[in-house]
Formats: sequence, C-alpha cells, structure tokens
Amino acid sequence: MNACGLIVEYNPFHNGHVYHIEAAKKTSGADCIVAVMSGNFLQRGEPAIIDKYSRTRAALQSGVDLVIELPYLYAVQNSDIFARGAVSILHEAGVSTICFGSESGEISNFKESYRAIQKNKATYDTELAARLDEGLSFPEANKYAYRAIGASSGIDLTKPNNILGFSYIKAIYEQMLPVDPLTIKRKNNQFHDTTLTGNIASATSIRKQLLSEKNSLSSIQQTIPEGTEEGLQHYQQTAGMWHEWELYFPLLHYRVLTMSEGELREIHGVDEGIEHRIKKFAKEATSMYEWIQLIKTKRYTWTRIQRLFTHILTNTKKRQVASLKQEKTPPYLRILGFTKKGQTFLKSKREDITAPFIFSLKKNAHPLLAADERAVRAYYSVLAPHRRKQLFQQEFSPPIQV
Amino acid sequence: MNACGLIVEYNPFHNGHVYHIEAAKKTSGADCIVAVMSGNFLQRGEPAIIDKYSRTRAALQSGVDLVIELPYLYAVQNSDIFARGAVSILHEAGVSTICFGSESGEISNFKESYRAIQKNKATYDTELAARLDEGLSFPEANKYAYRAIGASSGIDLTKPNNILGFSYIKAIYEQMLPVDPLTIKRKNNQFHDTTLTGNIASATSIRKQLLSEKNSLSSIQQTIPEGTEEGLQHYQQTAGMWHEWELYFPLLHYRVLTMSEGELREIHGVDEGIEHRIKKFAKEATSMYEWIQLIKTKRYTWTRIQRLFTHILTNTKKRQVASLKQEKTPPYLRILGFTKKGQTFLKSKREDITAPFIFSLKKNAHPLLAADERAVRAYYSVLAPHRRKQLFQQEFSPPIQV
Repeated sequence: MNACGLIVEYNPFHNGHVYHIEAAKKTSGADCIVAVMSGNFLQRGEPAIIDKYSRTRAALQSGVDLVIELPYLYAVQNSDIFARGAVSILHEAGVSTICFGSESGEISNFKESYRAIQKNKATYDTELAARLDEGLSFPEANKYAYRAIGASSGIDLTKPNNILGFSYIKAIYEQMLPVDPLTIKRKNNQFHDTTLTGNIASATSIRKQLLSEKNSLSSIQQTIPEGTEEGLQHYQQTAGMWHEWELYFPLLHYRVLTMSEGELREIHGVDEGIEHRIKKFAKEATSMYEWIQLIKTKRYTWTRIQRLFTHILTNTKKRQVASLKQEKTPPYLRILGFTKKGQTFLKSKREDITAPFIFSLKKNAHPLLAADERAVRAYYSVLAPHRRKQLFQQEFSPPIQV
Repeated sequence: MNACGLIVEYNPFHNGHVYHIEAAKKTSGADCIVAVMSGNFLQRGEPAIIDKYSRTRAALQSGVDLVIELPYLYAVQNSDIFARGAVSILHEAGVSTICFGSESGEISNFKESYRAIQKNKATYDTELAARLDEGLSFPEANKYAYRAIGASSGIDLTKPNNILGFSYIKAIYEQMLPVDPLTIKRKNNQFHDTTLTGNIASATSIRKQLLSEKNSLSSIQQTIPEGTEEGLQHYQQTAGMWHEWELYFPLLHYRVLTMSEGELREIHGVDEGIEHRIKKFAKEATSMYEWIQLIKTKRYTWTRIQRLFTHILTNTKKRQVASLKQEKTPPYLRILGFTKKGQTFLKSKREDITAPFIFSLKKNAHPLLAADERAVRAYYSVLAPHRRKQLFQQEFSPPIQV
C-alpha cells in the first residue's frame, strides 16, 4: 500500500481540508492518507477550538485513514522545528510522499528556493542575523535575507503556507529522507481571511464566526462536513464550551503574577528580556487581547507571544525543549485513530517501523509524552471539574475507529 | 504612652475580639492597643474571608489603635514560626505587654509549662522525635512529649489557643525580649465551635454561616460590631464575593496538574513524599474538600495540607522560607492603619524603632515583601479582572485612618 502524508491542525476540519485530501490523493496516486496532527495546542500558540479526539473523528470520516499526534514540544514551535517533527513522524510511519497546500502551488519553486539558499548560505545567514539584530521578527528578517541572495524566481516567502512548505522541504532535504514532497495550490480564501463566502472558508474565519455568537453553527454549516458539525455540537455538550485564549486569561494571569522573572526566563520562548514586559503589563491587562497588545513589539510578534504564553500555561521549560535536539527519530508514534484502511496500512508497515505505537498516556513516560500530558491538563483546566476529569479519560481510550 | 500588643487574624473581626481588646486594656493597664495581623492568608492555611484592609478598618473602629501586617512568610506557618514573627514585630513596635486569649487563662500555667519543658528538654525532645517518627502529627506528638515529662500542672497543650499562647511565651523567652506576656480566658464558644449562640461566636462559626447561604449577614449580625457588617457588605460589593478555599480549586488544580513532582518538592511544606499523594489525588478530586480529604493522613493533618496548598498557590519555595532564619529583627513594619492615638504612639516610638515603616508594596523589595505581593496577587486571582486590578491598588494607598 502506498501512503501520502499530510501535516495538519484541523482547527476545525472544514471543506478546504476535504479538498486538500482529495487533491493529495490525485497528485500522489496514493491509496492511503496519513495525517500528523497537532494535539490541543497549535503552531501559532493557540488552544484548538475543540479537542484532538473530536478533530480526529471528523478527519477520519472525510478521507483521512490514519491520524498520528504531533507531540506538543514539536507542535507549538516555529515552522522549522514544527516541520522537522512532523516530517520525521510521517517518514517513520512509512509514507512515500508528503503533500502540503501552499500559495505557490508549484513544488519546483520550493526546490529552487531551497537550492538558492543553499548556494548562498553565507550571504543568507549574514543578512538574516543582521536583520534579526535590528529587532525584526524572524519572518520579516527572513524575507530580507531571501531578497539579498536575489532568489526572485522561487516562492514568495512572506505567505504563511509558503513559509511552512519551505520548512517541510528543508526538513526532508536536511534529514535526507526518502520522501517525495508535493504541493497543491490552496483554494479560495487566504489563511487569515476572516470573511465567509462559498463553501470553502479559512479555519480562522470559521472560528471567528463560531466564537462570536451563540448557536453560530448554522452560519458556517456550508463550510464544514457533517462530521465536524456533529463534533462541534457534541464537544460543546460534553465540555460546555469551545476553546479560545480568553478563557485561559484567569489561569495565565494568576500564574504570571505569582512567578518571578527568573522563573519566567526558564520558560521556552521567554528570551531577550521579554519577561519584563510580560510582568509589567500583567499589572494593567484585564484580558489576553489587551495583554498581548501591550507586550507586542516589532520583534515579538503576536504569534510569538501567543506561543510563549502557551508554554507558560503548560509549564514548558527551555531545558525540556533542549532535550529534543537529541532525538534523531521519533521515540514513538501516538496513534489517535484510523479507518480499516489505515489499520491495514499500519500492519503492513509494522516491521519497518522502529518507534513503538502508543495509544494512551503512560506513567514515567518519555519527556515528549510527559509534555503532552501537561498540555492536555492545561487545555482542559478551563472546564468544570467533573467535565475536566471526564474528558481527560479519553487519553486512555483506544484509538478512534471509523 | 504604654502599649499592649495583640496577635490577631480577625477573620472576620467579631464581638469576641472586642471583648479581647477591652480585657487586654484592663489587664495590661495600657492606653494603646497595637495589633499584628495576618494579611490575606491565615495561619491555618486559609484565605481570609475578606481582605486585610476591610479587617483593619473594622478593628480600628472597635478599639485597636494600630494595625501592623504580619508578613505572609510568618503568617502561614506552624505556631512556633508564626509566634516568632508576630512577637518580634510587636516588640519592635514598642509594646510593653502582649496579651493573648487562651483556654487556660492563667499566665502562670504557661510559664510553668515552659520551665518544665526547659528542665526536661532532653526527654521532651526524644519523646517528640520518637512520636513524629511513628507518623503522628506535630500537635499529637507534642501532647505525648509533654506528658512524658510529667508536666501535669501546666496548661492543656491539646487546646488550640493554649498551643499558640505557649508559642508566644517561647518566642518571648527564647529571644529574651523585654515584653511581659499576659493572658485572658477566652469567652464562650470554643475555637472550632460552629454553632451560633448569644452575641459572642467563634470566627469559624461566623464564616460557616456567612458562606452557607445568600444574604446570610442578618443571621450573624448580633455577633459582630457594625464596622464588620459594613466591611463584609462593602467587600462583597467591590470584590463580588467572600473568599473561601473552593474558589481557588480551579487555579490550584491547574497549577498542580502542570507541575512535576520535583517542582512540588521545592514548595515550602511539601516533604516526606506528600507530593505523590497531592499529584495522585489531583486526578480524582473535583473540589478542594475532596482533594484534601483524599490526601489526609495521620501525619498530614487537614491544617498542614491547607497550609502547603496555600504555599503552592502563592508559589512559596523552601529556599525563601530558609532565608527567613537569617532575620534577627523585623526588616520593616508594614503599617496597615491607625487611629489618632495609634499615630501618636508611633511618633513617640519613632526614635527607638530601627525597622523602617512601609505603607505600600515596592519594586525590588525585601523577599518578605515580595512574598506578600505574590500572596496578594494569588488572593485576588479569583476575582473578575477589573475588580482584581482595582482591589490590588489598595496596596499602594496610604494607611487607613480612623
């Protein structure tokens, strides 16, 4: 059996994702789709609107055959670390191709950009460092460095999905993995577009709609498959809410106000004195939005601050992330769910896969899994106590089978 | 001017406290009453029902002339450390006597008990250590040690106020302070009595009543002075609540579930492997009551667990408490409020007092004051964001003047 890998967040799973799955099947010629998916916290440092189990179920109902969790310590990171984790897992799971959506839509452009940077690495690195020193954010500095090597014919590295795609290419080539990268052009709406038109909308616009009104499911119905609709409904019934940053403000505010600056500096992502701003503005802020707005600088973008706030919330230390660098291959594959076909695929690959399969949280687990447990605990912390306990039990249930 | 010192919590200030003040004045012959009062968290490891400002105001309206805050790192401790902090502050403030309520009511009995233990220190210490080794709580072990030296004519050291009183005597004698201890017999209800009869009731029973029903102020009206009634009403209006442990469950539960056992062990009061039980039962508990009930052992009494939970909540580390032992005299006196007479008294003593007066929180403050700030932050964390900010501002207001 021949599998194509996707790197996904499904926050929530919508029609654009269905399109991506179908296009990936067509482009790759694969008969099985393997998705590596972030858990309850996402790359841009946000809690997922509904938990990973609900998102897995919806994906399995609409064309994905196997869902593997991307561990928290890879999931809530800049695009390079995120990509390295995701690509390694897909490779370990035995996919032949990885297909990602991009603004460019041309894989040759990605390859060209990669080669251009490799050829002019010294210039690129010098320019990047200089721009970072000026106080620019990484994406901004990267744009200038890219221009400096005159790589005009490649991809536009200011587009969010091109940036991610480029990181996937880098991860594949640098680790010399026998996986073929493919890309498809993203359909319709832009990544951050917040308007809803037609039956394909960005996840951002769908979330915005869902979180803005009561009973707002009906207004986005045309943009999501039935499985997502059921998942959203069911999650709201069992958890009592859909997740968003503001719900975590009381916990995070309490946490920061009882931490010293020294303790803040131990947290992954808290660098260059940003702890002063975090503490200083904690005294003024009465919401997450206000707090991040106050902290924000040219260098510390909204996303970067959200990400470090996620690490504070989950108590993720620099030393835990540092230990990741030792890992050459994934220490395990956490299987969230599969279809019959996905299960058959896994069985067929069993002998080639050295990483053990894991279905639930364990005691004295690998640091990667321990971080996942903390993330799950933090994620459910905003629920009522009995719901918190009940939803956490899912972590010990068998994989979802569709 | 001649001052008598009281060691108080006023949780809340009630008619029994008014009686104590009047009796202390009579017994001591002093013309000024100085109270050292715990801040927002109390000796038994509980949040005060209303904040220290409301309690200070009520006390100043009913006979106390000067209220000085007992720093958190002394306030939430076993009776010996609590007493050492409180007695040192009263001595530094220039009182001639300290008058405490006790079940015994006879100061000679306290002195006799102290001498008996001093005379048989080796036996007492050996017996105490042996009983602690058996797994008894400190108060239990202490009772046996006391019996072992045959000190039958002294005080009954199983009574909570006798225990505290004995700690005051010890603190005065061991530091050889020129302060004369006095005691009065507690009136009416026992410390933990939870029934309400007559116009004197225990603070425990008053709190129980207040927290049990809506609009329950009327049912305890006869047991508190007018100032307390106004204070309780006003606090509920501005804060939106009266404080109790259950309100802190979401914060504490979140905190513990995202901490490692190693991090828990750094917290003051977390010893002897209790961190395993705290973590283990966090997974089951859906309330503070349930959680503490599950953790409790013969050795780890309810009070001891509440106290360590307070330290987790306020992020109070062992190393911060260890640094206390260096302090011979109070590094400052934090004045919460005074009457005209109290102010005159302070002025008259100004030249003898070496510790600076502090009226509000400061940046880069002494570790004692930094711990107080964390405690205040933690205390108000359960309030709505704008109320949290507003009430915290009190920490920068001038002393309350009545």
